Amino acid sequence: MKDYQNLALAMHKEKKGKLAVVSKVKLENKDDLSIAYTPGVAEPCREIYKDKENVYQYTSKGNLVAVVTDGTAVLGLGDIGPEAGMPVMEGKAVLFKSFADVDAFPICLDTKNVDEIVETVKRIAPTFGGINLEDISAPRCIEIEERLKKELDIPVFHDDQHGTAIVVSAGLINALKLTDKKINHVRIVVNGAGAAGSAIVKMLIALGAEDIIVCDREGILYKEADTNTNWLKKELAEITNKKGEKGTLRDAMEGADVFIGVSAANVVDEAMIKSMNPNGIVFAMANPTPEIMPDLAVKAGARVVGTGRSDFPNQINNVLAFPGIFRGALDVRATDINEEMKVASAYAIASIIDEAELKEDYVIPNALDKRVAEKVAKAVAEAAKKSGVARS
Amino acid sequence: MKDYQNLALAMHKEKKGKLAVVSKVKLENKDDLSIAYTPGVAEPCREIYKDKENVYQYTSKGNLVAVVTDGTAVLGLGDIGPEAGMPVMEGKAVLFKSFADVDAFPICLDTKNVDEIVETVKRIAPTFGGINLEDISAPRCIEIEERLKKELDIPVFHDDQHGTAIVVSAGLINALKLTDKKINHVRIVVNGAGAAGSAIVKMLIALGAEDIIVCDREGILYKEADTNTNWLKKELAEITNKKGEKGTLRDAMEGADVFIGVSAANVVDEAMIKSMNPNGIVFAMANPTPEIMPDLAVKAGARVVGTGRSDFPNQINNVLAFPGIFRGALDVRATDINEEMKVASAYAIASIIDEAELKEDYVIPNALDKRVAEKVAKAVAEAAKKSGVARS
Repeated sequence: MKDYQNLALAMHKEKKGKLAVVSKVKLENKDDLSIAYTPGVAEPCREIYKDKENVYQYTSKGNLVAVVTDGTAVLGLGDIGPEAGMPVMEGKAVLFKSFADVDAFPICLDTKNVDEIVETVKRIAPTFGGINLEDISAPRCIEIEERLKKELDIPVFHDDQHGTAIVVSAGLINALKLTDKKINHVRIVVNGAGAAGSAIVKMLIALGAEDIIVCDREGILYKEADTNTNWLKKELAEITNKKGEKGTLRDAMEGADVFIGVSAANVVDEAMIKSMNPNGIVFAMANPTPEIMPDLAVKAGARVVGTGRSDFPNQINNVLAFPGIFRGALDVRATDINEEMKVASAYAIASIIDEAELKEDYVIPNALDKRVAEKVAKAVAEAAKKSGVARS
Repeated sequence: MKDYQNLALAMHKEKKGKLAVVSKVKLENKDDLSIAYTPGVAEPCREIYKDKENVYQYTSKGNLVAVVTDGTAVLGLGDIGPEAGMPVMEGKAVLFKSFADVDAFPICLDTKNVDEIVETVKRIAPTFGGINLEDISAPRCIEIEERLKKELDIPVFHDDQHGTAIVVSAGLINALKLTDKKINHVRIVVNGAGAAGSAIVKMLIALGAEDIIVCDREGILYKEADTNTNWLKKELAEITNKKGEKGTLRDAMEGADVFIGVSAANVVDEAMIKSMNPNGIVFAMANPTPEIMPDLAVKAGARVVGTGRSDFPNQINNVLAFPGIFRGALDVRATDINEEMKVASAYAIASIIDEAELKEDYVIPNALDKRVAEKVAKAVAEAAKKSGVARS
């Protein structure tokens, strides 16, 4: 692997960051100035004052997305603060622009207080057509997202939860097709009960999964366990593990068809993979070192293996989801990014690979496949219309 | 005059706003992605976590300015709300970019509460290298600016106050040169006791003015007047009108050398101009209709006349000040935009016109004169260094 760390350091220093705010209009003479600024600019102001909805016609709002973080869960680096989160937020904005022509702007917040984050985002919302929450630690991120979704009339999306869930779902849709299994018949083990894990579980249920076991460091989540120390774990225990199983991750994986890891390096060994049902599907997304390395998983009998890494097949990369999702939501001025839109985007991502192309090491499209965002955007826009959250 | 209103409406609709957020780096292959985003991006994050100041090296922060409004005093339109203020804020950002390559971004706030505005701007500050307050009603804007200046370590500048004050000062410096008068000897009448009026008064005092009378609708401001209904008027009454004069604007203008209007249309008549000292200087900046039309003022004996309008000579246009001021402040990573930097920028603007070019209808450079911002930036950066607020 190349020395991306030093290459990144050099590039960021040379460019002094990755974003620029530019004008879509030229400003060469007095007329230009009088149209883009005073006195002409007063007229769009008046039109918006008459009807607030006109802000989508006369300003950039409809294509602007705030990439909001408090810097508490940046990549795998943890709580490094809003300033240190900035390079990631700028990177995200670059991806938004490159993949879906969305104008995204980093908002790095100098507060970790949930109420303050919610009220701050609400106060700056008039500028934006959508809010992408990013790298906010769990379970706070879930509360923040839920409250903002309720209180704002623009789409709010926490990518670390739903982006991952959508791309995993896309991979699973294709992997099940390949292995000729049905989602309502398979046993799925999700290791990790944080923001991503919980979003994955909810998404899989929306897709029809009926037999899901969630594990965390203390083992299988079940109702009334002493270890359900936060509301999120309690909620997950409620909606999964219908038979009330108890035990370790090792116990859970026996007879499983699907393993989904959003946990830690090397927590799965070959014996655990061997104990799974035939044609096992393994998405091991711990970063940078997966729950089990792909070659070991395959050797132990897994048929489809994906990770979060770009140097292995089937990379679960959120960039397959968020640009197209916001593109679609903004295009129809959706008031929300709802379950229907997320499910539609998972199927759209999966559909990029047609049956003839589908194989063990190609169930998820390449992260750089430029067809994906457009297809996702269309599917999301349509789902928004059908589910009644589109305003145009 | 062209139909700028309809031209503006058409342009804003066609372009859907005036701003785009673009990437400074290309994203064509896996390497690009690994450098701009994961895994490479973790390294600049780590460097900033080690030392917060590194955020200026590795991110766009050092060139990003928030254009912040609550929409309470937009142009002459008044309290039209944050959404309706957006076209002006975008226009401002366009000017920032075009004149001084500053990446400015509109932040339209859904609150009019002073405490909430202050705390919101503080919370979003990690993203930005500077804060430009815009179109916030007086006297709230002054309190907001003062508090933010104290509590933030990045420059904060309320353009409606200081931008106008600086450009008027530049015009006055040149007009006094032309009329061979000294600032400490002239009688100056300022009509308007709002944000702009008060900033002008303070700036003129910083430039050496000793005899200033401020008027508002109730006439001359003096200490202990019943009409000093807010702290701003009380403060202005304290620092001006040393002899405790009372009376109307008409009384004040008798024997004045300079009239500066930031008030309302047609409040000055020819007789009032005639009552001024010979070689009178008149800056009548009410918009769109000045306190007195330039031709009338000249006919009545004024020697130098300026307005806020682009269709008359000597246009007082803030665009001569703010782009260069922020350029200079950002270039040396100033912690403040202080009095010294403002005075330096006024002299820099004035100096664009050399003695040979100076004449009655050319005491202020053209708003589109691209030399201005560069000259202002240099002067401001130097003044920041001399006054000890530069960090690089």
